[in-house]
Amino acid sequence: MPGSEVYVGFDLGGSFLKASSFSLDGELQERHSLDVRGCRKANDYLDLFKDAAKSLSSDKCLKGIGVAVAGVLSLDAGKIVDSPNLPALCGVPILGMLEDAFSPIPLQMMNDANAAALGEYFAGAGEGYESMFILTLGTGVGGGFVQNGVIWRGASGMAGEIGHMIIEKNGKSCTCGSRGCLEAYFSSWALERDAKDHAVLHPDSAVAALDKVSPISLSELAASGDDEARAIWENSGYALGIGIANIMNLLNPECIVLVGGLINAKEYFLPAARKAWEENSFEQASKSSKVIWGELGEWAGVRGAIQPFLQ
Amino acid sequence: MPGSEVYVGFDLGGSFLKASSFSLDGELQERHSLDVRGCRKANDYLDLFKDAAKSLSSDKCLKGIGVAVAGVLSLDAGKIVDSPNLPALCGVPILGMLEDAFSPIPLQMMNDANAAALGEYFAGAGEGYESMFILTLGTGVGGGFVQNGVIWRGASGMAGEIGHMIIEKNGKSCTCGSRGCLEAYFSSWALERDAKDHAVLHPDSAVAALDKVSPISLSELAASGDDEARAIWENSGYALGIGIANIMNLLNPECIVLVGGLINAKEYFLPAARKAWEENSFEQASKSSKVIWGELGEWAGVRGAIQPFLQ
Repeated sequence: MPGSEVYVGFDLGGSFLKASSFSLDGELQERHSLDVRGCRKANDYLDLFKDAAKSLSSDKCLKGIGVAVAGVLSLDAGKIVDSPNLPALCGVPILGMLEDAFSPIPLQMMNDANAAALGEYFAGAGEGYESMFILTLGTGVGGGFVQNGVIWRGASGMAGEIGHMIIEKNGKSCTCGSRGCLEAYFSSWALERDAKDHAVLHPDSAVAALDKVSPISLSELAASGDDEARAIWENSGYALGIGIANIMNLLNPECIVLVGGLINAKEYFLPAARKAWEENSFEQASKSSKVIWGELGEWAGVRGAIQPFLQ
Repeated sequence: MPGSEVYVGFDLGGSFLKASSFSLDGELQERHSLDVRGCRKANDYLDLFKDAAKSLSSDKCLKGIGVAVAGVLSLDAGKIVDSPNLPALCGVPILGMLEDAFSPIPLQMMNDANAAALGEYFAGAGEGYESMFILTLGTGVGGGFVQNGVIWRGASGMAGEIGHMIIEKNGKSCTCGSRGCLEAYFSSWALERDAKDHAVLHPDSAVAALDKVSPISLSELAASGDDEARAIWENSGYALGIGIANIMNLLNPECIVLVGGLINAKEYFLPAARKAWEENSFEQASKSSKVIWGELGEWAGVRGAIQPFLQ
């Protein structure tokens, strides 16, 4: 559509920068995913943002840019305050850098989990529900609580950090420096650590024989019937279910939406997760908080990132 | 004030029925606390409600009754669905029984933690804050999340059950049937269990020599300088702090208000609790979510129970 107007949404995670163009009424047009694991400093990331925006808006008029970032943001300071998965960007005035790079196009930045929440609430699985809690399951784990279309941000924008909810006092070490966070049990890096730990203890196992340890290879192995790979998914899934039970007992939202790359392996973790939330929440809570799958997949964040322009 | 009009608020917990009379603008007049540990069936409780109301409203006109109850309520069914601390009332149509007993006086029933939340928000420590999370620390542990004066009840009224948030996967047994709930670490019954467990392991200790094990006797022993009693409070306090850290990371409310009988022992558990929330929450969250003490003490619930009549 040469000459048409678009918004571009970005979602920067620990592994990929996802980018999509949308029509002015929020319909998806094109999308790209760029590997950011080679980025060492802020300008490396900035170059990828610029390349993607150029490619998505060539011969179009870019009317607004929404950026979702995997980290704790201080929007006042325009910085990522804390991001275990994007260490090179911590403390960097990334908002100002992006605004300078794209000036005078309006730019909005938000936490990636909040963006995924808005995307699913307005254009995905959350449509029609009054209250929703979203869990983003990928390299890290994030969350967002939406009531009547509004994300609860908290006193300083910190609300929703369910990845760092402690589910096991003095438990496994997390990238954030604490111990026992949900993310230290169910996330890409936690699953990879579990597989590597398993390989050390069981050098003759199929898990140890994996060329590359990843959630994908681990779910392929589970699909082939390997009991040890399945047990890794089940243990992690049980921990996820405890996090879900805590959301049910604490917030009892109408729906709990699971999104992110890891949900592709749902058949290997869901039964254990369900067992955990049924065992660890009040029945009245678990029956009224419906657990459902995101409909926008890994692309919820890019859709949510442009939501401020649509309202 | 003979001839004047009053509301009466009740707060029924596992150990006491608290009852207060209030003027029509919410000012406290009289209060009583009745021991319910001898109650075996619903009518035993009902007799105490009637006696207290009669004594608080003799020669006054009773305009409304608010009842807070320590349990999971189904207001549609007028029942307590689940209450580990009030087993004799579970499944009993207590709302209808109270309405019959006091007819035609209007009667409102709510969860005790929600009642304490409303009391502190409108007439106590939460005044002036936009968002507040309250933790009720007594025989059990409850919670309530208030935003702009409204309690978040959730899809079926279950929100706020922080006492049953899992903080240690496969941890200590809880009265609710799960394991590792916050309440299984920091509550009157958890402290008493810890003291009894300690006495078995250390029969020559001062803890073992206590005539009656209770949070009060345990804090008196801590006050006398007994290191073992102090360690029991500190271990429990650290667990409480993990629960608080989870609230900070998940909801980041402007204030977290601690209320209930156990806060009388704050000097013995607060340092460990603070250590836990500082170690286990993001700095930006813990700095913006202020932890403060309730101002209405154990009487927040009776004040909150009558709030529906004041709005």
